[in-house]
Amino acid sequence: MTLKIGFLGYGMMARAHAHALNRLPLFFPEAPETDRTIIAGRDPDGVSNAADRLGFDRSTTDWREVVPAVDVLYVLTPPTVHREPTVEALESGVHVLCEKPLSTSVSAGERMVETAADSDAVVGCGFNYRFLPAIQLLKQFVEEGELGTIRHVRGQFLQNWQADATDAWTWRNDAEIAGAGRVADAGSHSFDLARWLVGPIDSVSGQLTTTIDNRPVDGTDERRTVSTDDAYGVLARFDSGARAIFDGSRVATGHTNTNTIELVGSRGTARFHCERLNELEVCLEGDRGFRTISVTDPEDPYVDRWWPPGHGLGWEHSVVHENYEFLSAIRDDGTFEPDFETGLAVARIVDAVRRSDETGRRVAIR
Amino acid sequence: MTLKIGFLGYGMMARAHAHALNRLPLFFPEAPETDRTIIAGRDPDGVSNAADRLGFDRSTTDWREVVPAVDVLYVLTPPTVHREPTVEALESGVHVLCEKPLSTSVSAGERMVETAADSDAVVGCGFNYRFLPAIQLLKQFVEEGELGTIRHVRGQFLQNWQADATDAWTWRNDAEIAGAGRVADAGSHSFDLARWLVGPIDSVSGQLTTTIDNRPVDGTDERRTVSTDDAYGVLARFDSGARAIFDGSRVATGHTNTNTIELVGSRGTARFHCERLNELEVCLEGDRGFRTISVTDPEDPYVDRWWPPGHGLGWEHSVVHENYEFLSAIRDDGTFEPDFETGLAVARIVDAVRRSDETGRRVAIR
Amino acid sequence: MTLKIGFLGYGMMARAHAHALNRLPLFFPEAPETDRTIIAGRDPDGVSNAADRLGFDRSTTDWREVVPAVDVLYVLTPPTVHREPTVEALESGVHVLCEKPLSTSVSAGERMVETAADSDAVVGCGFNYRFLPAIQLLKQFVEEGELGTIRHVRGQFLQNWQADATDAWTWRNDAEIAGAGRVADAGSHSFDLARWLVGPIDSVSGQLTTTIDNRPVDGTDERRTVSTDDAYGVLARFDSGARAIFDGSRVATGHTNTNTIELVGSRGTARFHCERLNELEVCLEGDRGFRTISVTDPEDPYVDRWWPPGHGLGWEHSVVHENYEFLSAIRDDGTFEPDFETGLAVARIVDAVRRSDETGRRVAIR
Amino acid sequence: MTLKIGFLGYGMMARAHAHALNRLPLFFPEAPETDRTIIAGRDPDGVSNAADRLGFDRSTTDWREVVPAVDVLYVLTPPTVHREPTVEALESGVHVLCEKPLSTSVSAGERMVETAADSDAVVGCGFNYRFLPAIQLLKQFVEEGELGTIRHVRGQFLQNWQADATDAWTWRNDAEIAGAGRVADAGSHSFDLARWLVGPIDSVSGQLTTTIDNRPVDGTDERRTVSTDDAYGVLARFDSGARAIFDGSRVATGHTNTNTIELVGSRGTARFHCERLNELEVCLEGDRGFRTISVTDPEDPYVDRWWPPGHGLGWEHSVVHENYEFLSAIRDDGTFEPDFETGLAVARIVDAVRRSDETGRRVAIR
Repeated sequence: MTLKIGFLGYGMMARAHAHALNRLPLFFPEAPETDRTIIAGRDPDGVSNAADRLGFDRSTTDWREVVPAVDVLYVLTPPTVHREPTVEALESGVHVLCEKPLSTSVSAGERMVETAADSDAVVGCGFNYRFLPAIQLLKQFVEEGELGTIRHVRGQFLQNWQADATDAWTWRNDAEIAGAGRVADAGSHSFDLARWLVGPIDSVSGQLTTTIDNRPVDGTDERRTVSTDDAYGVLARFDSGARAIFDGSRVATGHTNTNTIELVGSRGTARFHCERLNELEVCLEGDRGFRTISVTDPEDPYVDRWWPPGHGLGWEHSVVHENYEFLSAIRDDGTFEPDFETGLAVARIVDAVRRSDETGRRVAIR
Repeated sequence: MTLKIGFLGYGMMARAHAHALNRLPLFFPEAPETDRTIIAGRDPDGVSNAADRLGFDRSTTDWREVVPAVDVLYVLTPPTVHREPTVEALESGVHVLCEKPLSTSVSAGERMVETAADSDAVVGCGFNYRFLPAIQLLKQFVEEGELGTIRHVRGQFLQNWQADATDAWTWRNDAEIAGAGRVADAGSHSFDLARWLVGPIDSVSGQLTTTIDNRPVDGTDERRTVSTDDAYGVLARFDSGARAIFDGSRVATGHTNTNTIELVGSRGTARFHCERLNELEVCLEGDRGFRTISVTDPEDPYVDRWWPPGHGLGWEHSVVHENYEFLSAIRDDGTFEPDFETGLAVARIVDAVRRSDETGRRVAIR
Repeated sequence: MTLKIGFLGYGMMARAHAHALNRLPLFFPEAPETDRTIIAGRDPDGVSNAADRLGFDRSTTDWREVVPAVDVLYVLTPPTVHREPTVEALESGVHVLCEKPLSTSVSAGERMVETAADSDAVVGCGFNYRFLPAIQLLKQFVEEGELGTIRHVRGQFLQNWQADATDAWTWRNDAEIAGAGRVADAGSHSFDLARWLVGPIDSVSGQLTTTIDNRPVDGTDERRTVSTDDAYGVLARFDSGARAIFDGSRVATGHTNTNTIELVGSRGTARFHCERLNELEVCLEGDRGFRTISVTDPEDPYVDRWWPPGHGLGWEHSVVHENYEFLSAIRDDGTFEPDFETGLAVARIVDAVRRSDETGRRVAIR
Repeated sequence: MTLKIGFLGYGMMARAHAHALNRLPLFFPEAPETDRTIIAGRDPDGVSNAADRLGFDRSTTDWREVVPAVDVLYVLTPPTVHREPTVEALESGVHVLCEKPLSTSVSAGERMVETAADSDAVVGCGFNYRFLPAIQLLKQFVEEGELGTIRHVRGQFLQNWQADATDAWTWRNDAEIAGAGRVADAGSHSFDLARWLVGPIDSVSGQLTTTIDNRPVDGTDERRTVSTDDAYGVLARFDSGARAIFDGSRVATGHTNTNTIELVGSRGTARFHCERLNELEVCLEGDRGFRTISVTDPEDPYVDRWWPPGHGLGWEHSVVHENYEFLSAIRDDGTFEPDFETGLAVARIVDAVRRSDETGRRVAIR
């Protein structure tokens, strides 16, 4: 079986997924074979160059050309344009891997979930951090009870790429295109990990901030309004009674990529920091103090495919593993997690945070 | 001038303050001389032994004996018994250093502030962390504008001393004695630092948890109810628009003493961790990455009194410096910060967090 | 131009180089095109499977078939079998990238250098760590004078893969195959970095140890003698007067991959640790304390080809960059560094360490 | 029993020991009582002020006045003036605590050892780092076999207090007063810890460097020659076969106080860094990765005398504990370790390093 692959979008995540497809034969030879068939984007030159660079047979500026030509659609466009192509693909029986956040509204997400339910296609939502070895090991610790009952969760996602008021405006600053801001873009990763590792979230109190409310537009004299949040704080309670704190920012001076998650349990505590993505810090029962595990042993998740101990992987490997699992699920007529229901659950949290910020009240999820 | 000193209480903070008084002559010879005159406590043997050990002339089980005998009263008892002796001392013109939290209710705190306002005595509230060199350096950075406008504040206070359900019940688990739990005991330190460094807090959303709701009583077969929180989460907004996240816990497995504060500003970011109390991590304008400053140079606050660079101080030094400043203020007929108004402001925050937790609403401070 | 590539050996470094060749088109599209033509190895099944997996057109068990078929030969065999195929290739005008250590004897290295000098082919020795962005940035700091005159160098290479006496014997424990042990295998990386960054080494005092002198042979009841060192210590002096300390071990319990280098200069100090290979710690003039630079900005060496800031690379990227530079040198009729003269200079250091260990005397390098 | 105490010298270590004596009654009430009787120094005003500040009854500029007046003599002068007062004190039956390095020559140290052997007095050499809780815990790990057989030792002592060529000349730069330089001053601490933790050292290869060979004299226009080393490197082999690497520097830019020791054993590895002196990093059998132990639990050595977990101690506490043990030994007619034999053994190592540097040969100890 060779799966024909189509991409919508040719930005960073397109590069990451194309790279993953390129690497699978060397490192995961049992993965289904794929053919990078067609890639769509708005700018004809841009998408044509991307097709060359990323190894696609051809390119188009009309995404409607893509669905009929492929077995699998990768939806890598801004979130407001996720729903339409996804629904069309699913209605044609095409498998869909859609980047996160799944949707900018709960209703759009619901529509995507319903369509997926009516289809035999495999669907996935691009929460790639799940597929890092260290996060997989964290999941194992949780499932094997090494941490006991989880009490506290802390998820951060602090970056500084818009810390300066002179940093340029991007579509991520526009509510119409991006839906929400930092809370959707970064927060959704944290919310996904928390739900996956600990379980459903019952309620949230949220706080959104727009620290810098207009930004210069590159190549012009214009400054454009920032209509999305650039920082957020969230208090959450899980169905289980565990509590969580989340915060994120695009304007956090000094923070290159402080994407962290910590689980504090009755028997142990574990934490992960994305800038040191080959490491997991844990303090398990009987330990004095936190240990830094180099998650690079052959018995660690996915690691036997790569290099010897201590020869760390990079961020991109999360996407390789994600593609391996997603394509394997297609071959096996199986299901893939995180799916659209997960994406929708995360969208509901983002929505609840926004409502809590507006009303000043704790908001139940659902 | 030799100041006669009286202590109420003979626990850990009594040891810390007695130690501080003992050290001032060697390291801060210009501080007022003091005489450890009398110490009061409930248990006759306990307080008598403490008097010997801590260098007091005599002990008593009746705190009312102390006030007439001294120039300065140190109120080191549980917070529900702060108000009465403090008011009596102030009405007699005796200076008062009262441990934090100042009071377990806003009304008690208000009474203490009013009495202090009517008195010429110097008053202080025991937020000793302000007096660590690293925190003083952080304050300097803020005041000199090195961090620019503060955007985000993060304050944690995670400990594990009651992480196990078998850890014994203490008075800190009893709402009648302690007022609130972790949010008062630990949170008040974080709230004080945040207010001191950034300014008044406008509103909070809070979450309180009692993870383990009963505990064994040492030396008995009894288990007693825990009527205070053992963990909290808080979202706050400052008058300035800056936002803060606070969290704390007594049941945080693995965390010996994660007492941290981080200020993210428009020009720089700085953070402190109490387990590495001689260090301050900063990323200032023009820096790539966080630097770890060893706050042990002679030009650092208080450090010229002690040892060469890299020969770090301990926790106790915060209390030495606090005593130095407090006693100097008495000698100079000056004022001392943090005073009772500060203690009351913090009590208001604790109270607002509690109300927010109950109502699920954001609560304005005042 | 499409370069025909042949590999001798199909172990870990073969996988790393094949992977690098596979990635160049996506991330370094201006690199010369390559064709993985033929791969040689001793075991017919092993090499045949490797050919499939690594994307070679065909395989052979006779390395002499390779040279006539290719433009570039990658010598990825144990060091005692580097000389013969390298010499044959060079005499046929085939370019050679030879893994480190270049040779197990000074005389073999001299023969390789001489043959290279008589040839127009481009030669390289596989000191891949040079090509990590953090090490490249370190080189920039040195060249721009940010560190001033280098005073002290510290290079470690501690691993634990043979820390247990039950860890299996490998060819690296056999002096006939490997030449020297840890000092050649790991030390040669450290010596190369030190020479490249600081300059020629004048003399060394060395200490070699075989901590565990026999090991079980996998799949047998036999224990075989370890005839190479498993740990070393070296004091060195550079021509410039700077001094260095090196140590390495295969039996260093707890150390997954402590491959570090630190340069202490008159104006600043910088250090690198391979387990955190996206970071460089520096303390430059005017700094208080060491900063941790995330070497993941677009302006950092090679990083613009990859991902956004804070999305770290892995170990394998060093090999991608090395291949990019080596193949580009071939296209440009240029030269490549590290070349065979570098490999020989490192072999001389290894040899001097061995002689110093035997005689107890400081040994001049040449 | 109240022991009369006399000090020779009133510099930093005098402050540290006076402070220790002052604190013992509060924290180690069972320690012998002491009376700070007399302190001697060259400068009349200086020593008189020191007497006031440090709580001595009187001062003198003639050290010969001290011995007859006291039970215990603290020799806190530069090392070339250790022998004479020590010998005189011992011949009078006065106990002696002598700062390290014990002597600047092997012969002076031998004389001190012989005199001590002929006396009933208790003698000690001021290797205070042994008495830090983290180092004591490390010793426990070694003795309980947690690390197994020690294979490698690494001891560093890097500081930057003379990193700049403009940093002032001190007596530590003068071979006549200080004996050796960095290798004696700092190295002796490392050598002591290594011997105490691992056992006798059999041979060394050493390297001494004087990076900056003259320095300005404070308050003058003069520059004076530096006649001691300011950096050293040492390879050592223990009688047990373990090997060690030591390095130290006063000119190590960026290093405030990198005083570290690491023991790599067959079962585990442990390391200590003086700038984080409340921590011990260990990887014991069965651990994956290094744990950071906060050595602040009540069951840790000495800690029950101080504060709750996570409320760290400072450098000075090492000296408090040292005084507690030394004075207790006097009361108990016992012996104290480290004694003069230890001090002499360390002096022999320093001497051997110097000879090895001169001759380029490995030098046997003894």
